[in-house]
Amino acid sequence: MIGTVVYEILQFAGILAFAISGALVGVRRRLDLLGVIVVGTFTGVGGGVIRDLVLGVHPPVSFVYWPNLAVAVGGSLAVFFMHPGITRIRYFEVVFDAFGLGLFSANGAAVAFASGESPLTAILVGTITAIGGGVIRDVLVNTVPGVLTRELYAVSALTGAGLSVLLMACGGHVILGSLVGGAVAIALRLVSVSRGWHLPKPRIAREEEHRD
Amino acid sequence: MIGTVVYEILQFAGILAFAISGALVGVRRRLDLLGVIVVGTFTGVGGGVIRDLVLGVHPPVSFVYWPNLAVAVGGSLAVFFMHPGITRIRYFEVVFDAFGLGLFSANGAAVAFASGESPLTAILVGTITAIGGGVIRDVLVNTVPGVLTRELYAVSALTGAGLSVLLMACGGHVILGSLVGGAVAIALRLVSVSRGWHLPKPRIAREEEHRD
Amino acid sequence: MIGTVVYEILQFAGILAFAISGALVGVRRRLDLLGVIVVGTFTGVGGGVIRDLVLGVHPPVSFVYWPNLAVAVGGSLAVFFMHPGITRIRYFEVVFDAFGLGLFSANGAAVAFASGESPLTAILVGTITAIGGGVIRDVLVNTVPGVLTRELYAVSALTGAGLSVLLMACGGHVILGSLVGGAVAIALRLVSVSRGWHLPKPRIAREEEHRD
Repeated sequence: MIGTVVYEILQFAGILAFAISGALVGVRRRLDLLGVIVVGTFTGVGGGVIRDLVLGVHPPVSFVYWPNLAVAVGGSLAVFFMHPGITRIRYFEVVFDAFGLGLFSANGAAVAFASGESPLTAILVGTITAIGGGVIRDVLVNTVPGVLTRELYAVSALTGAGLSVLLMACGGHVILGSLVGGAVAIALRLVSVSRGWHLPKPRIAREEEHRD
Repeated sequence: MIGTVVYEILQFAGILAFAISGALVGVRRRLDLLGVIVVGTFTGVGGGVIRDLVLGVHPPVSFVYWPNLAVAVGGSLAVFFMHPGITRIRYFEVVFDAFGLGLFSANGAAVAFASGESPLTAILVGTITAIGGGVIRDVLVNTVPGVLTRELYAVSALTGAGLSVLLMACGGHVILGSLVGGAVAIALRLVSVSRGWHLPKPRIAREEEHRD
Repeated sequence: MIGTVVYEILQFAGILAFAISGALVGVRRRLDLLGVIVVGTFTGVGGGVIRDLVLGVHPPVSFVYWPNLAVAVGGSLAVFFMHPGITRIRYFEVVFDAFGLGLFSANGAAVAFASGESPLTAILVGTITAIGGGVIRDVLVNTVPGVLTRELYAVSALTGAGLSVLLMACGGHVILGSLVGGAVAIALRLVSVSRGWHLPKPRIAREEEHRD
């Protein structure tokens, strides 16, 4: 069935995008080959593992289904060896991270909704799937996760997950939800980066700012 | 039934206290509106999600029951917008964190014990529920979790959880355990902060101290 | 039965080794008594808790079976009080960490395989059990986990888990798999440290190296 094939491709695309973003961070941190593979793989499959733990899928799919791992390891290897040709590292990190974020948010929400969870639960599961991989990557390399600091990061994931569930609640197919929700989330995230869109920051009395 | 209402209120109070402590940390780190909401919400509901994963509740309650999220997001928003009026930030962080710690330790243990777990398991579940939110908050903003460094932090959680289970094992109601255990844990933690109580530190031969 | 006794001893040895490695890090970071116990205990039982969450064992064994906790707390206490006599701290950390890594990788894989998981799943579960405790320890004390940076760390865990499953698939007993796999993993890790074996690092164009 073509639906299943498209669905698989979207899953792999999300894993690949996050694995590449993780491996790029690993390369920038000068990890060795294995370190790059570990951070890339954890980033690629980490969100899905969190999703499965939340939904009670034991063992998580990526512990059972080898193609997920193969895609994540393959993406990490590709980054490691092709790296010297990639010059604008930070830019690529952001783009691949955005693709992973968008694909996982819409897809995770669609999967949860299709398996009978309520819209609220489905949206939250999609969001946690999308930001989980990035949080694992950033915590591993010891930086504050992008979800706390980057432009409209969590908003993009919520939007993708919400749109995906909305389309399915209106009778749309899981593929439609994944594709449209994912595309909007990716677009929203990339536009917010290129425009430097930020939400307001807290006002802090001047004397406090340097207390910490 | 009045018991259920009191129980709900204690749950919400714990979520609110931790969410506020997380949002205060987010404000101090100058995160934007969403970053503050994300760190506040993760801190508020994080301990309970860990508890549910440990006990095998799928999906965790906070993924299903929207009032939990509403309380966490509401507390984070309140901190963000009311913040300029709060001058002694670190002090508030400690107080709200102590309330979250005490309420969750006693409540988490009481819930686990009431659902048939052994006293040991119930105490451990309560303790992990109480310290889980704080660990998530501190790891997200990239500092060493307070449970490793703060005055009697883990001791307060263990005491609250243990007292709660003890009262219930003696026939007390789950509300009694939650209230008394929680109050003692909060008091112990706050007194230990104000008195600067610390457990002994390891003696280290002088030549080693600066080796790292 | 002698098999069960040997199996228990291997389990405890792994928990003890990781607890000591965690407590040594806590002592070096000058945590107080409780901080040392917390980081030692989380490191000792953390990998097994992750394994149980992945396999769907609720609550995880270490929340139910007090000897696991007793071994972890006992090891942490021993490090705290006997510490001044231990002079070459970093060396001991590495050795105990290697023993934990080897014992858990082979043992975790053997347990998973014996309980009916596929070879792939068993190897992945063993590997995540082995590196999980160390990742928890390193994230708690706010450093980049050794699995990303240390010599053949993940390779040693994979080798131990793979060898253990291979022996069992050929008809070997779970004890045989645990012992041989564990011994090879420990040896591989320690030799890689003493020889300074590293996998290749990525080549980075000079102008990029200092961009971050």
